[in-house]
Amino acid sequence: MERIESASNAKIKWAASLHQRKERKHRGEFVAEGVRLVETAAASDWPLRFCIATESALANERVQRIVVELESKGCPIYVVSPNIYKKASATESPQGILLVMESVQNTLAELSAKNNSLVIVLDRIQDPGNVGTMIRTADAAGCSGVIATAGTADLFSDKVVRSSMGSIFHLPLITEASAEDVISFARAHNISCLAAALDPSATPCFFADYRKATAIVFGNEGEGVSPLFLESAEPVYIPMLGRAESLNVATSAAIVLYEALRQRYYSNEVSSRQR
Amino acid sequence: MERIESASNAKIKWAASLHQRKERKHRGEFVAEGVRLVETAAASDWPLRFCIATESALANERVQRIVVELESKGCPIYVVSPNIYKKASATESPQGILLVMESVQNTLAELSAKNNSLVIVLDRIQDPGNVGTMIRTADAAGCSGVIATAGTADLFSDKVVRSSMGSIFHLPLITEASAEDVISFARAHNISCLAAALDPSATPCFFADYRKATAIVFGNEGEGVSPLFLESAEPVYIPMLGRAESLNVATSAAIVLYEALRQRYYSNEVSSRQR
Repeated sequence: MERIESASNAKIKWAASLHQRKERKHRGEFVAEGVRLVETAAASDWPLRFCIATESALANERVQRIVVELESKGCPIYVVSPNIYKKASATESPQGILLVMESVQNTLAELSAKNNSLVIVLDRIQDPGNVGTMIRTADAAGCSGVIATAGTADLFSDKVVRSSMGSIFHLPLITEASAEDVISFARAHNISCLAAALDPSATPCFFADYRKATAIVFGNEGEGVSPLFLESAEPVYIPMLGRAESLNVATSAAIVLYEALRQRYYSNEVSSRQR
Repeated sequence: MERIESASNAKIKWAASLHQRKERKHRGEFVAEGVRLVETAAASDWPLRFCIATESALANERVQRIVVELESKGCPIYVVSPNIYKKASATESPQGILLVMESVQNTLAELSAKNNSLVIVLDRIQDPGNVGTMIRTADAAGCSGVIATAGTADLFSDKVVRSSMGSIFHLPLITEASAEDVISFARAHNISCLAAALDPSATPCFFADYRKATAIVFGNEGEGVSPLFLESAEPVYIPMLGRAESLNVATSAAIVLYEALRQRYYSNEVSSRQR
């Protein structure tokens, strides 16, 4: 471990610069911050650049286990004072450990299209909290990939990474996709394409069939799914019984992705138990 | 309409004071802010105290229709400058209209327990965004009431009201309930009580039966459901296939409440279509 004594050290400036989208894109890097996220990142196979930590964070046993993991991977660790740490950090009450890492992105061609692939498509989702939560839910629901169209909040922003609770490291990620490319990809690989629509005349989401390879598109918080997706995907509608006018988009994704999981793994047993 | 020319006017101070929980509780009042929320509030049967609006907000046609509704209900409207408005407001980029209103709360005894009641129980949910989203989802899923235990974020805080997207006005709300009271209430009215648990040995949520009167408990973000609920309610588990360790609590509520909706209204048809 090396000590950094100055806030104008190049590594500190490097980490700080990655809180800007432009720099993240330019360098192909981002920051994972906090004990839990650094732990998940260290356990992933994502390339690590370096770690910055305070002495008090390093006194923590859980952090010490993380450090062993990082060192075994040849990741440099820099020890800093709390004040210098703050220069590199994006959070208000930092836990004193962050990791600068490479943002691993895949292309559509690299996304394996198996018989039972389940892919979530984020179509210009604006809110980073929604994006992170949707990635976390996609991970739990057994998705095999996340596709984000151009216009979606940056998947590597602090807030997305944080609200994904580490699931960002678990799934292949395709960013800046166009609707045309996603549609052609789905056609070429025989993946049926569904789109969550705010149209009560669409198929209720419980009546769609998710048991084959499926991509499900969720659209922008205000405008919904792009016209191009609506033209070529099967629109599905989440029924609403009360007086709510709409659902949060991350909520919608949870309902539809878990209906897919239910149909794939729990539907026969449910029927037999209920009879 | 009356004009208020001073930021130290009692009505402005009154509205501003309601951004503090203590004052909301003491007065039994809260603030609904923004065009959409004020519109929903005006259309509800909740008692209104007064409205504060800027001239530029009042120039908007949609706001003019709201004003007609408010005046028909005898709700005073005060016109203010943008600077005075900001004193009363809690938002950073205010839309220039807010409503001071009475917080309508019900008791457990007032909650109608019908054959098909579906009740959501928020057990010490901390994050106001989660609480608001859960109320919105409960509304859409056809819940007949929301019960919040003591320790849950204040249902009438700005952030909860905002993230409920107006659903706060659509459902009977019981606050500061104790686990004991909720359990006795459910027993007395033959309501089956389920609790979302992080225990993979619990019943998968798709195998529970939600077709009779049901209360579903969702617990604190860090600690989960209180032991008392876990002892007397049937624990249900949301299966997770990927490597996510947990789901956001508002996500969990969406999955379980919509499974209830599916079983109640969409399950036979799904089976017949899939055969």
